[in-house]
Amino acid sequence: MTEIEQKFKLPKRFEGSEPSVWVEYIQLALDYKPLNLGQGFPDYPPPKYVTDALTEVASNRNLHQYTRGFGHPRLVQALSKLYSKLIGREINPQTEVLTTLGAYEALFSTITGHIDDGDEVIIIEPFFDCYEPMVKYAGGVPRYIALKPKNTNKSVLSSADFVLDRDELEKLFNPKTKAIILNTPNNPLGKVFTRDELTHIADLCKKHNVLCISDEVYEWMVYKPHEHIRIATLPGMWERTITIGSAGKTFSVTGWKLGWAYGPANLLFNLQMIHQNSVYTGCTPIQEAAAIGFETELARLGTDECYFVSISKELEPKKEFMAKFLQEAGMKPIVPEGGYFMLADWTPLESKLNLSSEKDKYKDYRFTKWMTKNVGLQGIPPTAFYSEEHKPLGENFVRYCFIKQDKNLQAAADLLRNWKSGAKL
Amino acid sequence: MTEIEQKFKLPKRFEGSEPSVWVEYIQLALDYKPLNLGQGFPDYPPPKYVTDALTEVASNRNLHQYTRGFGHPRLVQALSKLYSKLIGREINPQTEVLTTLGAYEALFSTITGHIDDGDEVIIIEPFFDCYEPMVKYAGGVPRYIALKPKNTNKSVLSSADFVLDRDELEKLFNPKTKAIILNTPNNPLGKVFTRDELTHIADLCKKHNVLCISDEVYEWMVYKPHEHIRIATLPGMWERTITIGSAGKTFSVTGWKLGWAYGPANLLFNLQMIHQNSVYTGCTPIQEAAAIGFETELARLGTDECYFVSISKELEPKKEFMAKFLQEAGMKPIVPEGGYFMLADWTPLESKLNLSSEKDKYKDYRFTKWMTKNVGLQGIPPTAFYSEEHKPLGENFVRYCFIKQDKNLQAAADLLRNWKSGAKL
Repeated sequence: MTEIEQKFKLPKRFEGSEPSVWVEYIQLALDYKPLNLGQGFPDYPPPKYVTDALTEVASNRNLHQYTRGFGHPRLVQALSKLYSKLIGREINPQTEVLTTLGAYEALFSTITGHIDDGDEVIIIEPFFDCYEPMVKYAGGVPRYIALKPKNTNKSVLSSADFVLDRDELEKLFNPKTKAIILNTPNNPLGKVFTRDELTHIADLCKKHNVLCISDEVYEWMVYKPHEHIRIATLPGMWERTITIGSAGKTFSVTGWKLGWAYGPANLLFNLQMIHQNSVYTGCTPIQEAAAIGFETELARLGTDECYFVSISKELEPKKEFMAKFLQEAGMKPIVPEGGYFMLADWTPLESKLNLSSEKDKYKDYRFTKWMTKNVGLQGIPPTAFYSEEHKPLGENFVRYCFIKQDKNLQAAADLLRNWKSGAKL
Repeated sequence: MTEIEQKFKLPKRFEGSEPSVWVEYIQLALDYKPLNLGQGFPDYPPPKYVTDALTEVASNRNLHQYTRGFGHPRLVQALSKLYSKLIGREINPQTEVLTTLGAYEALFSTITGHIDDGDEVIIIEPFFDCYEPMVKYAGGVPRYIALKPKNTNKSVLSSADFVLDRDELEKLFNPKTKAIILNTPNNPLGKVFTRDELTHIADLCKKHNVLCISDEVYEWMVYKPHEHIRIATLPGMWERTITIGSAGKTFSVTGWKLGWAYGPANLLFNLQMIHQNSVYTGCTPIQEAAAIGFETELARLGTDECYFVSISKELEPKKEFMAKFLQEAGMKPIVPEGGYFMLADWTPLESKLNLSSEKDKYKDYRFTKWMTKNVGLQGIPPTAFYSEEHKPLGENFVRYCFIKQDKNLQAAADLLRNWKSGAKL
């Protein structure tokens, strides 16, 4: 190691950082060019009026300079109008909304702006993988609790079958607990927390004076009869909840890299300080275009034409089709109540597979890599969404994304069918 | 203070955070609607081919989803081509370039990715104001050294008159020194460091094994006969330099919020880890449009049509005009060698002004606020760009931005002339 390498290592608090599952699996996809059901984004165009909005904004040569750091005025107005309706209270666009560079930056600003050395943060597993390093980098101590299946004898499971053990959750709360991170609808499981479940979490937050960080980026993708409930609307929760949303998920434009957080001004202030000193401000044309998108939807909120209604209807048959073809391939899908991912238990096939060419520690990594290379179909290994000690809970599963063109879902079904008959599985 | 307010304060390492000068002065501008020569952005349209590029990209409905986290492939290719030429060595687009959400995030990732508790960082004053909180939040200890005028008897000063005391600089380097932050052309002073000055800094970096963070966002705005020299090109400096650039400054689109860092792979790795866990990826359409911009300029690099050449020619008469009208108003401008800001000593007017209606601690704040409210012309107080102990060095000055329409610069000249004759200054 040279003198330079020696001195210019990552600071100690970041030691153990490693490329995320995304970096590894995006490279894998580039190398093997599989049918990619891995990363969560639509492989078909977003609504035309959304891209038209950005086209129009881009052609206006006066909309390309700095905007307000804590959120473009037109966008925070639109967000406050929308969420004031949904939450049932007036949200101040200046002090109770922050727009961010993706929901990712909203999570970062929320966690870094609240978690101090030694603070405990409860993380529900499986979880979106960035929660863990963000909490650790802030000096916090993650405390994990896994959603576990209460009934695994059915041939098709539902994400509703996965629940928290109430006693286990209660025992995690203690005087060091600063926050709990909730993700509903959950990625990767697709679980939509019920009012009863949220009330239990809310009661614990209130009893122990704990912050609730509610990641609701899949808020508009919920399958009937399930219903998305915002925990900030529960009694006594507004004042201790920061809710996070995403334009990428809301308008099917994940590349826009625009998110937001809303909550009471005293909590939002902490996010503003982190935002101000890490990125300072957001992209003007993107925020203007998203504002146009929200204004369009606000005018038709709740109608069948509203994209916030139609997106779930568009996804429903894709979800059903995926559940069917995974079952036919011999896997055991967990049908999600929300979001656009599906976990499936692939181990019914395990005894017929030889994954010894793959050397990863966890068998879901071995399975997904083997499938990419040998079957040409890519999924994501769910152990990436568990803490080290609980990774075995994720090893039997693979995560597939179904916000994909019907022809590509059909191609995935064909790949699996041909593989199954060819390999005589 | 309620139980919630008590518990959910900013973490200790962020205590003392406060809204930046930008938040305060943008609000001031909204409240009083002055002619705003404060914030650094053009008040006229960017080059048409640049906004055309974003318009074209936006209308392509296949360019709205996630791209590669460490940089959109087409953009890192273009950046590596450009800087390979300018630096005189092959830059690997995969491992030696990172695209970021503004140069601001590049600074954040560089500082957070390298500075550990107790590390000292040398900051040259006056400095872009975010350097200080970024270093402190990383646990670092800023050590300041001011550029000081060597000859103040001239009626018009040049930014070249401001220099570092070499002994003072040498004494700052010690075994705890981790990095020095260089900004050339400098904001707010407009100083363009000479090869001789850079060589002295480089020699100290090599002698003490120190990282050089080179903020070069104004690299294309340099006035003849001055020349922008990239410190990474000095012998032995590539391996210890991270250079930061900005699409906002390069293409006059500050609202695009796109920046980059380049340097050796081992140093860039540290930035990637911070980027990955704070924002993860950048905006796809913005990066694609910037790539088109770079490809266009690469094809005509060095010719008169090249925007990287023409931008300085466009700014030169604006700079001359501003120096003239500030002088006529009784101020003493410091004519910059680069960038698009000008500092001016306003204290020749001080004895004739009554600023007692303003209560700020430093008199440049009082002067600039008073001017906004009473003359209708807004500048920025330069003490925002000095450490607490050196703020008196900035109090006599005001910062104005001259990347503004000629008619607005003329309006500023008129405001000052009318004020001067009306107030019999």
